[in-house]
Amino acid sequence: MSAVKTITVDGTFHMKRGAISRPTQAYECWGELSSAKDNAVLIFTGLSPSAHAASSPADPSAGWWEDMLGPAKPIDTNRYFVICVNSLGSCFGSTGPASVDPDSGEFYRLNFPVLTVEDIACAAGHVLDHYGINQVHTVLGSSMGGMTALAFALLHPERCRRLVSISSAARSLPFSIALRSLQREIIRKDEAWQNGEYDLNGHGPISGMRLARKLGMITYRSAAEWAERFGRERATDRIEEDNGFGIDFEVESYLESHANRFIGSFDANCYLYLSRAMDLFDAADQGGSLSASFSQLKLEAAMVIGVESDFLFPVHQQEELALALQEHTSSVTFKRMASIQGHDSFLVDMDRFRPAVAEFF
Amino acid sequence: MSAVKTITVDGTFHMKRGAISRPTQAYECWGELSSAKDNAVLIFTGLSPSAHAASSPADPSAGWWEDMLGPAKPIDTNRYFVICVNSLGSCFGSTGPASVDPDSGEFYRLNFPVLTVEDIACAAGHVLDHYGINQVHTVLGSSMGGMTALAFALLHPERCRRLVSISSAARSLPFSIALRSLQREIIRKDEAWQNGEYDLNGHGPISGMRLARKLGMITYRSAAEWAERFGRERATDRIEEDNGFGIDFEVESYLESHANRFIGSFDANCYLYLSRAMDLFDAADQGGSLSASFSQLKLEAAMVIGVESDFLFPVHQQEELALALQEHTSSVTFKRMASIQGHDSFLVDMDRFRPAVAEFF
Repeated sequence: MSAVKTITVDGTFHMKRGAISRPTQAYECWGELSSAKDNAVLIFTGLSPSAHAASSPADPSAGWWEDMLGPAKPIDTNRYFVICVNSLGSCFGSTGPASVDPDSGEFYRLNFPVLTVEDIACAAGHVLDHYGINQVHTVLGSSMGGMTALAFALLHPERCRRLVSISSAARSLPFSIALRSLQREIIRKDEAWQNGEYDLNGHGPISGMRLARKLGMITYRSAAEWAERFGRERATDRIEEDNGFGIDFEVESYLESHANRFIGSFDANCYLYLSRAMDLFDAADQGGSLSASFSQLKLEAAMVIGVESDFLFPVHQQEELALALQEHTSSVTFKRMASIQGHDSFLVDMDRFRPAVAEFF
Repeated sequence: MSAVKTITVDGTFHMKRGAISRPTQAYECWGELSSAKDNAVLIFTGLSPSAHAASSPADPSAGWWEDMLGPAKPIDTNRYFVICVNSLGSCFGSTGPASVDPDSGEFYRLNFPVLTVEDIACAAGHVLDHYGINQVHTVLGSSMGGMTALAFALLHPERCRRLVSISSAARSLPFSIALRSLQREIIRKDEAWQNGEYDLNGHGPISGMRLARKLGMITYRSAAEWAERFGRERATDRIEEDNGFGIDFEVESYLESHANRFIGSFDANCYLYLSRAMDLFDAADQGGSLSASFSQLKLEAAMVIGVESDFLFPVHQQEELALALQEHTSSVTFKRMASIQGHDSFLVDMDRFRPAVAEFF
């Protein structure tokens, strides 16, 4: 069962660095739109999740933010009409490199234009148009989704009353660019990638995707959490025979099982495009500086949440974002979380994140 | 010109998990051994350097620690007889997986026994025997070399008067194990690795080695340094044609040039063995706990240096090491450096490291 809905954008969709024809925008929604159409919450996701943020009668399987979103939950679907979009360029219903170009009848693959966070934000606006929503109550995003939420507010100031940015940043800095660049190179160096021309129904660059996912897992958590959780425990499924270089420590077994779960669920070319889109994002592009960019915003309130143990999107970047927002927004809340689960804290440290989000809503 | 000297260990060299015949131990030395043979300083290196720590008449090229070691430098070769060893298992003169097994006449490759830090320490002891040095003035090591220096002091308490451990740790924790495990897997997944049977005079797993080196570079520096140094600068040698996924940012160009320099200089199998040796090290192995292990030590003095921005060998691990040493050593100095160059600081932040090392000597 799927709760995924789609809309198709008419005609040509102009992107920052190219154009595509009649793209599909996939999304899921929860709750009821009020007659005044003033209770919409728009959620943008990180790189890899689908639009299935939470269960619903149409799809009772748990979503990636199940504890946060639903009736009487912090984002209360009894009060709000919540839309979560699958990012343009992704592969869970929205048009991306793994989709067929309606003009040529061929898969886009690397003929898909360079993707930017602004393009993802812009495509989502068409879902609001579909419902006749002029202004959202809140636009919210975590990780890459926080960049997209900010891009949406900058592109459409009049459409956003409130903004929530979680474990995100106003721009990518060289450390995270280096990590993502290496993940992409690992995938591209896998011979099975075939310069993007792998069989889309077949295996593709599985080895490269597994290694890139392991690097991702390393950057999504924290050394402190792993020291507590794994220490120097040896794996129960040690692979002794692999020349001493196989699975020995518990942390190696953990990475292996996570990589195995990811494989097959995400298209390699889509991963490359979304990953690069994050590198390219800089909210100061709109005005020369964050302050100049943000002077266009018409937000009533904003909340920025950062996590001390996050080294992919470090907390000083959330602080910078909050301070720049404060120059032009009357009510800005900055929450610095002591979670030890690193970048992924917003997905797992619900004891800290649920009250923070509930308070804002 | 080379200043590398070698000794050969007679007969069978027993390792922690196997044995090899008549291994060679390569080293360089500087200064003169005193008649009392009490002025020797033994240096162990990190994973990749050779024994060429500094220039000498026999090899005037700059060494990897040129600013630290020499006449009137912090480790003053006018006063000390300094020996730097190339680690057993490496490929700069010492026996390792890229060497020929004298018993079979074949290259060891993956038939080399599992390597441990204790084996590296033990092999170096034979250089001291060669010179008739019963006790060293100081054993010193940085990064992996700090582990080896500690292992040497634990294996031969009566041979060590003083110990210096720089940016190292008493044991590997899961975060660094995960990073090294991923580096090894990246190399092993390169088809050119051929399960270790690549042509030793040919190319080998160049692609895997380049990617592993890039990951290494990311973990050797810090996000703060790169933010200052590169920001969001675009590379002057942008590679636009590579589907938008090539070199775009300056930090990507930096990683590329470093990876290119490393290639060809280090044997892939040696890298795998040395990398795994670090994971396996736990100074508590000797006694059940660090305190129990360290009770055997007979040190007069020790210095432990850590760097706040080092996330591969985090400063809390150096603090843990210093505190455990303090229980059994009368004079222990712990220096917490504010360098922003991360793990590599001891190679580059000479303004902080030279005075600290000079003070100890």
